[in-house]
Amino acid sequence: MSYWLWYPGDFEIHQGMIQNFSREERGMGWPAYWYMDDCYCNVMFSNEYELKTSTEFTVYAKGTGFVSVDGHKSQLSQSIRCPIGKHKIEVQVGNTQGLPCIYIEGEVIKSDPTWRVGNFIQTEPAGYSDRYTLLSQDPNQMYFAKQAILAQKVTPSKKGVLYDFGQVVNGQIQVDLLNPLIQSVTLCYGESATEASDVEMCYYKQEQVTPESEIRKRAFRYIYIPDINESDVELIAYHEFYPRNHKATFKTDNHIMNEIWKTSQTTYDLCSDWFFIDGVKSDRWIWAGDAYQTNFINQYSNFDEEVDKRTIIALRGHDGIQQHINTIVDYSILWIISIYNHYQMTGDVDFLKFIFKRMQGMIDYLRKQTDELGFIYGRENDWVFIDWLEIDKEGITAAAQLLLVRAYQAFIECGKAIGADVSNYKGLPESLLDQTIKHFWDDDLGCFIDSYVSGKRHVSRHPNIIAIIYGLVSKDKQKSILENVLLNDQIPEITTPYFKFFEQDALCKLGQFQDVYKIIESYWGGMLEQGATTFWEEYNPDDVGVEHYSMYGDKYGKSLCHAWGSSPIYLLGRYFIGLKPTEVGYRKFEIEPHLEMFNEVNCVLPIKGGQVEINKSGGKIKITASRDGGMVKYKGKDYQILKNKMVTLG
Amino acid sequence: MSYWLWYPGDFEIHQGMIQNFSREERGMGWPAYWYMDDCYCNVMFSNEYELKTSTEFTVYAKGTGFVSVDGHKSQLSQSIRCPIGKHKIEVQVGNTQGLPCIYIEGEVIKSDPTWRVGNFIQTEPAGYSDRYTLLSQDPNQMYFAKQAILAQKVTPSKKGVLYDFGQVVNGQIQVDLLNPLIQSVTLCYGESATEASDVEMCYYKQEQVTPESEIRKRAFRYIYIPDINESDVELIAYHEFYPRNHKATFKTDNHIMNEIWKTSQTTYDLCSDWFFIDGVKSDRWIWAGDAYQTNFINQYSNFDEEVDKRTIIALRGHDGIQQHINTIVDYSILWIISIYNHYQMTGDVDFLKFIFKRMQGMIDYLRKQTDELGFIYGRENDWVFIDWLEIDKEGITAAAQLLLVRAYQAFIECGKAIGADVSNYKGLPESLLDQTIKHFWDDDLGCFIDSYVSGKRHVSRHPNIIAIIYGLVSKDKQKSILENVLLNDQIPEITTPYFKFFEQDALCKLGQFQDVYKIIESYWGGMLEQGATTFWEEYNPDDVGVEHYSMYGDKYGKSLCHAWGSSPIYLLGRYFIGLKPTEVGYRKFEIEPHLEMFNEVNCVLPIKGGQVEINKSGGKIKITASRDGGMVKYKGKDYQILKNKMVTLG
Repeated sequence: MSYWLWYPGDFEIHQGMIQNFSREERGMGWPAYWYMDDCYCNVMFSNEYELKTSTEFTVYAKGTGFVSVDGHKSQLSQSIRCPIGKHKIEVQVGNTQGLPCIYIEGEVIKSDPTWRVGNFIQTEPAGYSDRYTLLSQDPNQMYFAKQAILAQKVTPSKKGVLYDFGQVVNGQIQVDLLNPLIQSVTLCYGESATEASDVEMCYYKQEQVTPESEIRKRAFRYIYIPDINESDVELIAYHEFYPRNHKATFKTDNHIMNEIWKTSQTTYDLCSDWFFIDGVKSDRWIWAGDAYQTNFINQYSNFDEEVDKRTIIALRGHDGIQQHINTIVDYSILWIISIYNHYQMTGDVDFLKFIFKRMQGMIDYLRKQTDELGFIYGRENDWVFIDWLEIDKEGITAAAQLLLVRAYQAFIECGKAIGADVSNYKGLPESLLDQTIKHFWDDDLGCFIDSYVSGKRHVSRHPNIIAIIYGLVSKDKQKSILENVLLNDQIPEITTPYFKFFEQDALCKLGQFQDVYKIIESYWGGMLEQGATTFWEEYNPDDVGVEHYSMYGDKYGKSLCHAWGSSPIYLLGRYFIGLKPTEVGYRKFEIEPHLEMFNEVNCVLPIKGGQVEINKSGGKIKITASRDGGMVKYKGKDYQILKNKMVTLG
Repeated sequence: MSYWLWYPGDFEIHQGMIQNFSREERGMGWPAYWYMDDCYCNVMFSNEYELKTSTEFTVYAKGTGFVSVDGHKSQLSQSIRCPIGKHKIEVQVGNTQGLPCIYIEGEVIKSDPTWRVGNFIQTEPAGYSDRYTLLSQDPNQMYFAKQAILAQKVTPSKKGVLYDFGQVVNGQIQVDLLNPLIQSVTLCYGESATEASDVEMCYYKQEQVTPESEIRKRAFRYIYIPDINESDVELIAYHEFYPRNHKATFKTDNHIMNEIWKTSQTTYDLCSDWFFIDGVKSDRWIWAGDAYQTNFINQYSNFDEEVDKRTIIALRGHDGIQQHINTIVDYSILWIISIYNHYQMTGDVDFLKFIFKRMQGMIDYLRKQTDELGFIYGRENDWVFIDWLEIDKEGITAAAQLLLVRAYQAFIECGKAIGADVSNYKGLPESLLDQTIKHFWDDDLGCFIDSYVSGKRHVSRHPNIIAIIYGLVSKDKQKSILENVLLNDQIPEITTPYFKFFEQDALCKLGQFQDVYKIIESYWGGMLEQGATTFWEEYNPDDVGVEHYSMYGDKYGKSLCHAWGSSPIYLLGRYFIGLKPTEVGYRKFEIEPHLEMFNEVNCVLPIKGGQVEINKSGGKIKITASRDGGMVKYKGKDYQILKNKMVTLG
């Protein structure tokens, strides 16, 4: 089989840029507002062959260039005969408008992962994808499967017609005009019926649409067309999606929980086509914080290693660093930790080897903005985000230090895994953690304060949550944080689903399963009650009607299909089913079920190279894994799981 | 007037990349084999206006994006009304395939040089060009004037027909088939009749050409079509060129010298459309060494400041440096000196301010590869070129040190001119020159040796020529170099026109006018005798027939229209007319004529913002300048030239 080949990472960088330029709002394009790399425009592929018989091959390329066999040049797209013996094949390609890449047809000499590629500075193993194996493809395009969807419900009103497709569509509308008196129509899109019907303010709108119009790909559930009757127009929506398998199932006797899982899966699927994006309507951008969380959901649902790798590469760009990822200091830090998480999930040493230099570049970039105590501070134009909530960020803030501790740990662990020399970084996490505890831990308050510089002793949940999820503090301090912060109503509540994710994670890590279960049921169940078919960027149970749709000062600024909305998959899989890898790539893994709140459970979860099946019925829990390496922890006892041998508990 | 605006330098970087990818050889594309930057893909334009009346404007862009007025966003391509008062206008544009750029139509708010633009890292005054002032244009295209040219001579033979267009055409062929029996033809191109007629080996060939075929832009004088009769086919060539004025004329009683000047001008014009390229057939690439020399020719002919600036920017790319320019250490050094030369010629402080940071980046990059004595050495993968001729480059080589001395000087002078802090570089040129003389000057041989490390005491002309042209050694040493090297037949002759340029320059600087005059007459005159309509990449008088066309091991590898071939313009203008600036931008300039070999001269040469006219007739020389600041040196006397007041000598 032949593959399209490119400079490793450059498909992701180029397509990631295109993804980040695909946002649309009320007729405006909105490219992401940060510095973005593009692919190298000029590359040289090379390989060596020892031929036992003569052979023919043909090189195709996107771009301009030539083929060289032992220094003798030939044209692209022409069959080349290569005689018996040892030969060095080189292909140079330049592309002025996009990704330079090649495809070689041949029996022996063909474009496969044995090729290397250089940008005239360095040479690396070529990049490729299982999704680009046909000559007819072009890696400058992202391909999607398409599914025609008809409106499930068509509601005429005095002023027009509302089409409800019954699900989120991310794709193109085809318009047929059945009434010869109608020359063109206006398409008003909405994630909600309210938005679509708001001809003035809806987020997407296209006017003067005829059957010949080029209609942009958009995400919506509803279309409203003003000034027509039901019989005037026929619409077909073509939903575009990245075809993949679902690797998890989750069915219980709790109908709401089942719906929450299903809706989470739908939401996650929609936001994870070629990259983890935040939401399908807006921003459609690749954000490191969102991606960090989305991969935890991925791990417990589709276990799609490729989308995670593509996202990690696209976020980072090439070697040189111009600014923090998405302009946000903590996103750069989370990006580093996400690489460890990917490694933990997959055991993929090859990817680690590829990304490690860029990881080290980022660690060094971060270290350059630490002070004499090792604390990271925000520089002019840096955005230390942490969360939208009020946090005392004067000088330096505890949350960023604790994140950086984990990033140092993650970097050192990754370096060791590939045998890289990380001796220059030895002791960094320990020292930064010591200093952070020394300066930010307040014994009287029994928790971390945001800032020791401001003198305000302001407590927010954030640094305390971070300390918990990364296991950075002792049992005593964990307990103290739980009591004094997490279960303390005096401490301002987390309001963003982004940080709610980390908060629920922390609560589960501290054994608060009942609380988290209730939150899932009420918060996500609440969205379902509001008619959600996907989970939202934010949900406030106290909102009424159109209030649900506003955010960022925009009447319809909220995204109703947002990746982080699908976190119940992670919480249910990780803490209630209780599955986690204990060695990288699930070489060893653990299942510690907390299924007291379910009578019946039928669940399959993916692990690297296999799956785990957990069933509960009649008070008994039965567990099977398709791989060795598992261990069940249940009621204080450990049970080894052998491949395909069922373990029965209770 | 409105201009297209872009990130400063990015038009040049993007178009320079396209230029460097435009090489073609026998059906193969051949992108330049070095690392090339492309433009930033995502930029934000901004301006502020204080409006006294309300006004309307419309923003057009190449790419996706939006307009923001005081933070309120609007669509591109839509008229926007802006009320009285102070307003901040921003336009963000992302382009996934090329240069993001904008054009604003409006009475008051319009795209002009008052705009700034940022890449989310830094903000600078916007880039623009007098050649891009129409909405209908696209700065992703380079535009040319076109001229239809018919074959001057059509020669049928038994096997086909040869068309001679009588001049070099750089453009497209249009084919009309007049014989209905002929379905398609093969176009064989040649700079020479021999090449075009060589159906097998000619450099450019296009087969199965019909009137509908897309025919690539190519450079040629001859077209040969095999297997047709004269009446079967009609050809029209559309020559493409960058329209510009000739600012110099040169007519004397020496017919050959006149032809040499004219042919030099033609050659120079062809190789300096949007960029200084080495040759129109091959490579079509932008080389720093070639460009360095070409601008000296420019200074004495078209005085086109823009093409020099475009070339300097395109060679360098963005801030970060990945490798030496064109991979060659000495080309990086010459690039630095070329900026000083541009400043000397134009007095353009704005350009200096723009390029200075990139200049400093290059100086620092070079300094990083100097040893404890300050000597620059070649690193692995670095190419210390100097010249094709055999030079002892073991360890460190004298020529590179002397070039670097001049680069340090040039950098410091440029820094001072814009008030930059160059105190860190103080003393560098003096110290490097001292060390170079100490280690490389051989008192016994009375000249510089190539290497003091190798122990070979090998003498080549190169370092000695460099010492002369940059005035780096005392009168004594100059004299010694002249005797022991330049006029010494024992020292291997310079064979490349590239270094011949420097050699003639050095000989003139040492007053060897008669010798240089003879060389111009015989060497360039020799090419004319061979029927040249443009000057060649290399000329060996001993070659016969087809030997003239081969180079780089390729039967037709030589370019017969090569920029550096036009150096007689510089030599005649600079040393025989004797014009040179003595203060930047010709604020002061000097004319020191050496016209003994001419009886009649009618010459006009450009200076910054004006021209100088020199006529010789009846033993008298008459000089007029359209600007003040001139001084004539003649037979030991100085004569001041006042604006438009003729000075008569002799």
